[in-house]
Amino acid sequence: MVINHLKKNAFYAQSGGVTAVINASAAGVIDACRRNRSRIGRLYAGRDGIIGALTEDLIDTGKETAAAVKALRHTPSGAFGSCRYKLKGLDENRAEYERLVEVFRAHGIGYFFYNGGGDSADTCLKVSQLSESLGYPIQAIHIPKTVDNDLPVTDTCPGFGSVAKYVAVSIREAGFDVASMAKTSTKVFVLEVMGRHAGWIAAAGGLAAEADGEAPQIILFPEIVFDEKKFLARVDRTVKKHGYCAIVVSEGVRDADGRFLADQGTRDAFGHAQLGGVAPVIAGLVKRELGYKYHWAVADYLQRAARHIASKTDVEQAFAVGKAAVDFALKGMNSVMVTIDRKSDKPYRWKVGHVPLAKVANHEKFMPRNYITRDGFHITDACRTYLQPLIQGEDYPPYRNGLPQYVRLKNVAVAKKLPAFALKR
Amino acid sequence: MVINHLKKNAFYAQSGGVTAVINASAAGVIDACRRNRSRIGRLYAGRDGIIGALTEDLIDTGKETAAAVKALRHTPSGAFGSCRYKLKGLDENRAEYERLVEVFRAHGIGYFFYNGGGDSADTCLKVSQLSESLGYPIQAIHIPKTVDNDLPVTDTCPGFGSVAKYVAVSIREAGFDVASMAKTSTKVFVLEVMGRHAGWIAAAGGLAAEADGEAPQIILFPEIVFDEKKFLARVDRTVKKHGYCAIVVSEGVRDADGRFLADQGTRDAFGHAQLGGVAPVIAGLVKRELGYKYHWAVADYLQRAARHIASKTDVEQAFAVGKAAVDFALKGMNSVMVTIDRKSDKPYRWKVGHVPLAKVANHEKFMPRNYITRDGFHITDACRTYLQPLIQGEDYPPYRNGLPQYVRLKNVAVAKKLPAFALKR
Repeated sequence: MVINHLKKNAFYAQSGGVTAVINASAAGVIDACRRNRSRIGRLYAGRDGIIGALTEDLIDTGKETAAAVKALRHTPSGAFGSCRYKLKGLDENRAEYERLVEVFRAHGIGYFFYNGGGDSADTCLKVSQLSESLGYPIQAIHIPKTVDNDLPVTDTCPGFGSVAKYVAVSIREAGFDVASMAKTSTKVFVLEVMGRHAGWIAAAGGLAAEADGEAPQIILFPEIVFDEKKFLARVDRTVKKHGYCAIVVSEGVRDADGRFLADQGTRDAFGHAQLGGVAPVIAGLVKRELGYKYHWAVADYLQRAARHIASKTDVEQAFAVGKAAVDFALKGMNSVMVTIDRKSDKPYRWKVGHVPLAKVANHEKFMPRNYITRDGFHITDACRTYLQPLIQGEDYPPYRNGLPQYVRLKNVAVAKKLPAFALKR
Repeated sequence: MVINHLKKNAFYAQSGGVTAVINASAAGVIDACRRNRSRIGRLYAGRDGIIGALTEDLIDTGKETAAAVKALRHTPSGAFGSCRYKLKGLDENRAEYERLVEVFRAHGIGYFFYNGGGDSADTCLKVSQLSESLGYPIQAIHIPKTVDNDLPVTDTCPGFGSVAKYVAVSIREAGFDVASMAKTSTKVFVLEVMGRHAGWIAAAGGLAAEADGEAPQIILFPEIVFDEKKFLARVDRTVKKHGYCAIVVSEGVRDADGRFLADQGTRDAFGHAQLGGVAPVIAGLVKRELGYKYHWAVADYLQRAARHIASKTDVEQAFAVGKAAVDFALKGMNSVMVTIDRKSDKPYRWKVGHVPLAKVANHEKFMPRNYITRDGFHITDACRTYLQPLIQGEDYPPYRNGLPQYVRLKNVAVAKKLPAFALKR
């Protein structure tokens, strides 16, 4: 077998919190690399993200069957492992960058595909500058992923649409439930959702309310300072008018002093601090001040892992940005993030594009104020127009024995060529 | 129009906590009544359950279109409203029974279909005895419904299979998520599910673990006294062996003194009691004693309202028991509950049957001890054999704009003929 030494190998890693569709992006990358075998050598994945690159713990994606790669498209989580590990600046930790170059050189890696959110975009930017900083030729392409939807420039981030759909479906269902019980039992239901800084996920819950009075009747955003009195008055009015009140609350809601409502200094009977959610705090407040019976739910990881009710649009976009990353690399690009560019709202049309990473790294996209109603408790039509296409379509995984069939990869390690490297943290 | 005064009218009501499929039972009742127009007159539903009968707040189901009735089959919650209202004994509150007879007589009601759990079976039994106790001829048929799966005799209770599926799917998905994050972040995930007295729902989570090491690795049942030391050792061992640990905990778990773990006397910084769930208690314990980073979720109403991922078997059984109730009434039966009788495990075969209500009311079905592993942390093969068929099949609702389309009925009130009646409670 003649190995083409001119063909550069590629590296792919998943970074940060995983989503229902980040593996669809991985499938897009693998699929595109396999279709371009004449131009790209092997595709290695980092085990547990960038840590895999630093520790030379590489996975040979070539060992995975076509069926497994196809199944990645409908498998939530990060199939190669992810990590929360942000590279420091070149000046602060030059050793890490030198190690990356050493690993890339040892394994003939010339393409770096990094699949993550804001912090990862920053890491990807630094890697893309290795040519200048350390003289090692690399093309680094960032593949967007985050349930928080807070990356700039791109219309949306793969991962968000599916969380959005899960939250909208869930609050609709819970709203129907509470409405049936309200006569003699629960009158207020609180669903806590993710979004520490931006209210995109909470806003998505608002899509479930297609007509006046439908659940959720109240949304609490991190962008809006929590006003207890105004909130309680709204809850009371809603219960009196509609018989019940369904509330979506973002984990990041804060009071006028900037404190997270979830952080109430809660302690158990032994004095142990309890890290509770914000949902029980809101529910307890309603019970105490208004006397209504309540129920609350905290969706936590269920929302971002819920591949069973993923948005078809989201899955398609996740796959497309993975594929495009490879295409852009083959066109010679470096230091860009793949974007989703909206061409029209109705019908929703989009295509992939790209933006220099320098314009992305360390910028967060917040909810525009005109996406939130003036009273601060719901979303506007402008927000609906933006969000609506992102939850379109269902993309059900296959089932066996009543359960979704998600793939576990073989994740075969590539033989190491270098001495071990100790992570600082 | 000639009204056949020999045809008795029927009454249907939903009782207690609603489910993803109780409306499928309602659809079964309505459908069967409509197919038997020559023998059954009008079908009235009680608005907010039995309260509708007591207050003469009857809904004319005849005003609902065929399309709306069809849509009921895929709509979660209780479409006519439910209530938590248990009739007292005849001796304690004779006035309520006399009022029921008055309402039944005024509206020509001779069939009473009551759709609920254990308490409702008791109410249904008392109504079935009205012929003897108050001389009013009535046939009362109980239609089983409860997510708790705690009704005796019947193989399962409609509502349970769909919660079971939701919990199994959710913990599988969350397990994949945590597994990807465990290297540098979350290592322990806790999902709290319903089941205050019996661990059926928690047990269903165990179906997701089809091989050793798969999530959930630990299940905490209300039937097993919580042993902190043994639990912590198991969590630690699981994390060390598999890298992470996913836990399903029943809300009803108790300590050796019989206290609910959820009831930890938790207070916020202002001294307000916080009614937290058991999930944060378990998670906090793991963090404090083992130091592992955790996440927790409380599914609450989401689990019982999750029609989007309902079990097809459950939906079919829910519809079937509704239909059978009407068939049994037309055969002259009284004071029975419709049952689901299992004919074989593999392949799963079942048919509807019936049992005297006296054998059902005030009996709870607990998990047999041989359904829980000897160590108390998981389910046995016998349990899998029982549970597995109940989550079989998907029965997706229709979607529009990315959201499931659930029906809201017109719920047109029947003209009242009697003076008002004040509820005691």
